[in-house]
Amino acid sequence: MNCAEFRKRGAEMVEYICKYLETLENRRVVPSIEPGYLKELIPDEAPMYPEPWEAVMDDVERKIMPGMTHWNHPHFHAYFPSGNSFPSILADMLGDAIGVIGFSWAAGPSLTELEGIVMDWLGKALGLPSFFLGQVPGSKGGGVLQGSASDCVLVVMLAARTHAVRQLKKQYPDEDESHLLAKLMAYCSRESHSCVEKAAMISFVKLRILEPDSKSSLRGDTVARALKEDEKNGLIPFFISTTLGTTGSCAFDNLEEIGTVLQDYPEVWFHVDGAYGGSSFVCPEMRYLMKGIEYADSFNTNPNKWMLTSFDCSALWVRDRIRLTSALVVDPLYLKHGHSDTAIDLRHWGVPLSRRFRALKLWFVFRSYGITGIQAYIRRHCRLAKRFEQIILRDDRFEICNEVKMGLVCFRLKGSDKLNEKLLSNINASGKIHMVPASVNEQYVIRFCVNAENSTDDDIGELCFKYFIVIHSYCEFIMYSQNQSHNDKSIFGNFRQKSL
Amino acid sequence: MNCAEFRKRGAEMVEYICKYLETLENRRVVPSIEPGYLKELIPDEAPMYPEPWEAVMDDVERKIMPGMTHWNHPHFHAYFPSGNSFPSILADMLGDAIGVIGFSWAAGPSLTELEGIVMDWLGKALGLPSFFLGQVPGSKGGGVLQGSASDCVLVVMLAARTHAVRQLKKQYPDEDESHLLAKLMAYCSRESHSCVEKAAMISFVKLRILEPDSKSSLRGDTVARALKEDEKNGLIPFFISTTLGTTGSCAFDNLEEIGTVLQDYPEVWFHVDGAYGGSSFVCPEMRYLMKGIEYADSFNTNPNKWMLTSFDCSALWVRDRIRLTSALVVDPLYLKHGHSDTAIDLRHWGVPLSRRFRALKLWFVFRSYGITGIQAYIRRHCRLAKRFEQIILRDDRFEICNEVKMGLVCFRLKGSDKLNEKLLSNINASGKIHMVPASVNEQYVIRFCVNAENSTDDDIGELCFKYFIVIHSYCEFIMYSQNQSHNDKSIFGNFRQKSL
Repeated sequence: MNCAEFRKRGAEMVEYICKYLETLENRRVVPSIEPGYLKELIPDEAPMYPEPWEAVMDDVERKIMPGMTHWNHPHFHAYFPSGNSFPSILADMLGDAIGVIGFSWAAGPSLTELEGIVMDWLGKALGLPSFFLGQVPGSKGGGVLQGSASDCVLVVMLAARTHAVRQLKKQYPDEDESHLLAKLMAYCSRESHSCVEKAAMISFVKLRILEPDSKSSLRGDTVARALKEDEKNGLIPFFISTTLGTTGSCAFDNLEEIGTVLQDYPEVWFHVDGAYGGSSFVCPEMRYLMKGIEYADSFNTNPNKWMLTSFDCSALWVRDRIRLTSALVVDPLYLKHGHSDTAIDLRHWGVPLSRRFRALKLWFVFRSYGITGIQAYIRRHCRLAKRFEQIILRDDRFEICNEVKMGLVCFRLKGSDKLNEKLLSNINASGKIHMVPASVNEQYVIRFCVNAENSTDDDIGELCFKYFIVIHSYCEFIMYSQNQSHNDKSIFGNFRQKSL
Repeated sequence: MNCAEFRKRGAEMVEYICKYLETLENRRVVPSIEPGYLKELIPDEAPMYPEPWEAVMDDVERKIMPGMTHWNHPHFHAYFPSGNSFPSILADMLGDAIGVIGFSWAAGPSLTELEGIVMDWLGKALGLPSFFLGQVPGSKGGGVLQGSASDCVLVVMLAARTHAVRQLKKQYPDEDESHLLAKLMAYCSRESHSCVEKAAMISFVKLRILEPDSKSSLRGDTVARALKEDEKNGLIPFFISTTLGTTGSCAFDNLEEIGTVLQDYPEVWFHVDGAYGGSSFVCPEMRYLMKGIEYADSFNTNPNKWMLTSFDCSALWVRDRIRLTSALVVDPLYLKHGHSDTAIDLRHWGVPLSRRFRALKLWFVFRSYGITGIQAYIRRHCRLAKRFEQIILRDDRFEICNEVKMGLVCFRLKGSDKLNEKLLSNINASGKIHMVPASVNEQYVIRFCVNAENSTDDDIGELCFKYFIVIHSYCEFIMYSQNQSHNDKSIFGNFRQKSL
């Protein structure tokens, strides 16, 4: 394909994207296909010769779209948002065309520098402590864009591990480092994202999973007890990951309590994962939820979730950038350059060497929306979640299972987990709405997240209507099924009465 | 920005991209700026209010481009290619607009399935052994797209580590796993990519770096000696990473010899990193270079290097997919879905949970070029590299330092490393051509890689001319500098004679 054809196909693709987004509501939000559907539709070998562009785009519509879960659909309420916006798409088009790979300053000077600048923009916009900012005089910290929150948590755990082992090595110079590793203990809450467990597996360190309180918040006294107990048993606490906006129920760990406890453990790296919740701090009225952030050694949030920026774009700040990079430095000659001694080389800030021009997306988003535009978007989502909470609360067969502070509402039918599982599976099978479950206080709950950029009162109002339709189909399911528990039957009876 | 404005801005961006690529040759290939240039040009806080689109694009041209290293420039000969093509850009536009995040089958069924299918397409197109293919009856293997070769090497090392520790745990059930870890030894060549060292740091395993032969190829007897020696010392060899197309000089380890040695060490995971060289196997005449691949447990190549696909898109195949995923599985309720038992969830195949719709890029590239189109592209690059080698060989002040088999030519002035460093730094300072150094047989060499998709005989011919211009400026440098070694002076004298 040459430039002349790209001019044509590019314009067509822009049009396809607009039509796709404008008519998305007419599609099922989740597909009605079974695993393996696609291999029936696509040849099992690549074509020997070029195919016409029309054939490719025809297959997109006929083969790919029928197996698509539409994350931008107005009734996609699963997981958390997949950040998206037109300025972000445009930035990625440009980034792809430039094709710069920013593993070192020399390989991509403007990529490297823009990343530093927008990380400071974002840090300031969120009201983070100034020690996290890279371009503030005297700061030892700095920010970097990672591919995912998993990468953020992994690299800070690795940095903490490297530091802890080096400290131990001073005490026990003759011990094999792996034996020192055996003494290290990391901590998180039961409500932490699974990526903390994965990071601990990869880092080969022990992880103690702590119980949060009844509101799914990890508290200081729980942390204090665990640290003390482990120290008594000869273990060395070296890292804790806390969460602002848990995946299950958007709960907030108590940073202030935990930070106060950690004052007695200066060697413990205190990480704060605000993958979802962190972006809300662009609104000053939300910042009370990160009280205690001044104790933290690192913080991450995902603009690719709740800040209109396409995946991947996960922002990480550290208090001490040397501690981060010293865990990840490998320096071969073919990556050295004339400014190796003075410039930042971003390959030392993460697992992969190479990086896309992610900063461009965030820069385009900031400039197109302004801070006020992003605030308005966050506030609208929070308001819509409260609206949905009210709709649920109007029906006393249901209960709300989390404190609705951001865009996530957790609810359930009062009744068994099985009943709720069936409800959710029926809702999802309808193809009209998509939600996923979580476990909150060991109960199965249904998560409803406000996701689409332009979600409106109407969407949530209409959803309310559809949701009763779905309950109706659930009802039919109950009638069909004969082996229900007493509890489930009574709820069903209750429903029958109300709906008459 | 709404759809109406995106239609306009999208079309403009397509036009900007075309103009950028069509006139790229008029720009400096590397910028003439110093670290920190950008913060003088950009405010240190994000704007409060939206800015007009024109202002953003104006800043792209006035502030970002002057600090850009242009990877698609016809005279960018540094590193390896940054894969790029119009079909790949179009696929990424679509992928961004859809915004699907494929951590599980349910979250992105067509993403997950297309990835499996194109990985088989690619595996077959490269002539890989069928045990690597996921969709072949009876195969236990499969392919997955990772974000980078670093990720590929890391995840297979982790898989090997998990397996090795589990095996040891059976023998020593009461030992702490970290103590077992202390016994493990990984291997690579001095010419392996630095990501192997980084993977070993992250995996917290010992790494023994072996000496390649005089052609930078790791040989079987070297491996055999090291394994035997380490076993005698109570260590347990568990992983080796070999390379097809090393970063320094595009050398090829001897897989057949190493594979034969490893027949006696069935517990050692044998990885083959063909990040650059691997893509060439789409041409059957290149496959002699991967003789012995049938012994391998895993193989990676980067379509985002030499197969016209934009970063990130790094292809990894494993012989035993269960061994890979069992090192990376974490399974919380909020990621479970109705087909969790039967479908592939790609989050278990890598470090990050989330993934872009990378498969779309590879699929668009295959269909737009066909296998024959990709072959023609690879063959043209190989031919141009041979052409450049001939140009260098015509001048006896220079020597070629690698066997030119693919798109990379390593050369140097006969003389000191310092002389060559100065030459390269002068060439790069010219802004006309960009190359990077490497160390081959402990000598400083200059790497020239054929990178741009549409490189032509003219580009290489013209380069030849420019290269003499640059030598001239080098010459002036020598005259200016008074403290040269005897050897350098004689070369300079030689040059003066020739150029008269």
